[in-house]
Amino acid sequence: MKPALLLPVLLAAAAASGLAIAQPVKPAAKPSPGEIVAAAPAGDWVDIAPDDLLVMTLAPDAGGKPRAVVIQLMPAPFSQGWVGNIKTIARAHWWDGTSVYRVQDNYVAQWGEPDDASAKAKSLPATLRMMPESDYAVAGVVRNELAAPRVTDAYGAGGFSRGWPFAIGKAQAWPVHCYGAVGVARDMSPNTGTGSELYAVIGHAPRHLDRNIAVVGRIIEGIEHLSSLPRGPAPLGFYDKAEERTPILSVRLASETPATEQPHFQYLATASQSFAKYAEARANRRDPFFLVPAGGADLCNIPVPIRRKP
Amino acid sequence: MKPALLLPVLLAAAAASGLAIAQPVKPAAKPSPGEIVAAAPAGDWVDIAPDDLLVMTLAPDAGGKPRAVVIQLMPAPFSQGWVGNIKTIARAHWWDGTSVYRVQDNYVAQWGEPDDASAKAKSLPATLRMMPESDYAVAGVVRNELAAPRVTDAYGAGGFSRGWPFAIGKAQAWPVHCYGAVGVARDMSPNTGTGSELYAVIGHAPRHLDRNIAVVGRIIEGIEHLSSLPRGPAPLGFYDKAEERTPILSVRLASETPATEQPHFQYLATASQSFAKYAEARANRRDPFFLVPAGGADLCNIPVPIRRKP
Repeated sequence: MKPALLLPVLLAAAAASGLAIAQPVKPAAKPSPGEIVAAAPAGDWVDIAPDDLLVMTLAPDAGGKPRAVVIQLMPAPFSQGWVGNIKTIARAHWWDGTSVYRVQDNYVAQWGEPDDASAKAKSLPATLRMMPESDYAVAGVVRNELAAPRVTDAYGAGGFSRGWPFAIGKAQAWPVHCYGAVGVARDMSPNTGTGSELYAVIGHAPRHLDRNIAVVGRIIEGIEHLSSLPRGPAPLGFYDKAEERTPILSVRLASETPATEQPHFQYLATASQSFAKYAEARANRRDPFFLVPAGGADLCNIPVPIRRKP
Repeated sequence: MKPALLLPVLLAAAAASGLAIAQPVKPAAKPSPGEIVAAAPAGDWVDIAPDDLLVMTLAPDAGGKPRAVVIQLMPAPFSQGWVGNIKTIARAHWWDGTSVYRVQDNYVAQWGEPDDASAKAKSLPATLRMMPESDYAVAGVVRNELAAPRVTDAYGAGGFSRGWPFAIGKAQAWPVHCYGAVGVARDMSPNTGTGSELYAVIGHAPRHLDRNIAVVGRIIEGIEHLSSLPRGPAPLGFYDKAEERTPILSVRLASETPATEQPHFQYLATASQSFAKYAEARANRRDPFFLVPAGGADLCNIPVPIRRKP
C-alpha cells in the first residue's frame, strides 16, 4: 500500500468503528510567555545582590572566545550552610586553577578538584562546615508563604518564593533540581559535601536528587559553556585524561569585583501579576503556533525569568 | 558571626519556636534502577526491527572521531504518516549533504535544510503526505492498553506501551517530548511538516509541545553528538554562518545497510516485571546514595532502557 493511500483508509476505519477523531478546538491567540515577560513593568523586577552572584571564568574556547558562567546563590533560609561555605571558598580564590572534570549527558557538569588526592593537595579554608541531613529541607516553611501559582507535578506540590521554585511537603519545603540548578557534590555519606565540588544540571530535571543533594544556586548566564562541553568518556561522565578537562581561570563573588565590572541581574518577582500570567501561559500556550494547550506545567517548565538589569 | 556558629543558633531558634526539624527515615537499601536493568532476563528484552532504525552519520569531530547518531522510529499506530514520509526521504538519501543548522540550549538540535530556498533547491520525494491535525494524537487507544506503571505528572496521566512513553487523555493517547525525543519541525500551520526537518530534544522535556508537534522517534545512541554541539548565536539557536553548521554525511535506514553492518538494539519490555521494578526504583530510589525516596517520577524521568543486543 502506498503511504499516500493509508490515511483515508485509517479515517474510514475509524469512522466505521464509531471512534470519533476529536479535532482540537483552537482557542483565541493570546500573548506568548516571552511577550508577557517583555511587557512586565519595571516594578515587577527585583535586583539580585552582587553578594549572591558568582562569576566563573573558564579558559577561552578553541576559537579564543571568553567563557563566563554566572551563578546566583540561594537566599535564606535555604541551604545557607553550604552557601556560606561557597562564599568562603570563593573569597579564598580556591577554585582558581581547578577544572570542569565531569560532564555526563542529560545529567550534570561538575567542577572543582577531580579526585581526593588533588583536593587534599589544595587545602580548603578551615572554617567550612559540614551540614547535617536535616538541612536538605527547611522545616516551618508553611505553604502559604509560597506565591501563586501552585504547581502539582509528579513529585507533589510546588510553588515559587523570592524568585525560586520550591517543592512543598507537609512540614518542609526544599529547593528543586531544575535545568541549570547548581548543587553540592558529595560522597555516599550525606554530610560529606562542603561546597567545593559543585555541579550544574544540564538535562531533564533529576528531581529524585531533591532532598538528597543540596541545591545551592542556579546558572543565570552562560550555561551553554557547560552544557555544550564534550561528554566525559569514563563512567558517570568523568574525563579520562587531565587535558580533556576545562580549566577554570577564576571564580569570584560579584561583590568582590570593582564596581564598574560588577554584573547586574534582576528576576521577575514571583509574587507579581506578571509572573502569574507568565506561568499560566507556560501551562496553557495559546500563542499562534499552538494547537492544544497542555493544561499544566511541571515546576521546572516554568523557569523564573532573569535578565541583565536594563 | 562566624559561619561555624550559625547552625547551633538556627537549631536553637527552631527548638524555641516549637518547629520540629524532621529527620528523614532511611529505608533499607535496595537495588538501583541500573542494577535492576542489568539483572533483567533475556526474555524481557525485545528486538527493534532494522526498518525502524535510522543511522545519521555526521562529519567527524575536530579530533577526527566519527559521529553516528541512531534514531528509533515510532511503531504503529502513532505518527505513522510522518514515519512513512521519513522512511521515503531516507531511502531517497535526501538528507545526505544537509546539516544540523540549529542548536538551542535546553531545547532542541534541528537538522535538514536550513531555509526555504535551500529546501526548494533540493526536491523532496513526490509521494510525501501532509498530515492533518488529528494525527497528533490517536483516538481509540484505551487506557488499559497501556502497561503499568501508570504515571500522573503535571500533564495528566501517562503510561508505557511497546517500549514508549505516552500521555493518556480521555479518548486519545499521544507520544511525549522527553529528552532525546525526535519530532517534526513545522511552520505556523500545523500541517506543514513533512518530516524532512527534524529535531531532537536536548533539554528539560518541553511537554507543552505534545500534540502540537509530531513526535516520531527518539535518539537511542549518540545523542551526545547533538547535545554537545555549540549553541547557535542567532534567535532560537540558529547558526549565523553556514560554516557553523554540522554537516550530515548520510542518513540510512538500518534495513538498507549490508546485514553485517546493521546495528542491533533491544528495549526492555514495558509490560515486563523487570520494567515495573525499574520504574518503581526510579520513583523511589533506595540504593545507598539516597536519603529520601521521591515518592514519584514524571513520565520522562523513567527513560525506557535500550541496549545493543548482546
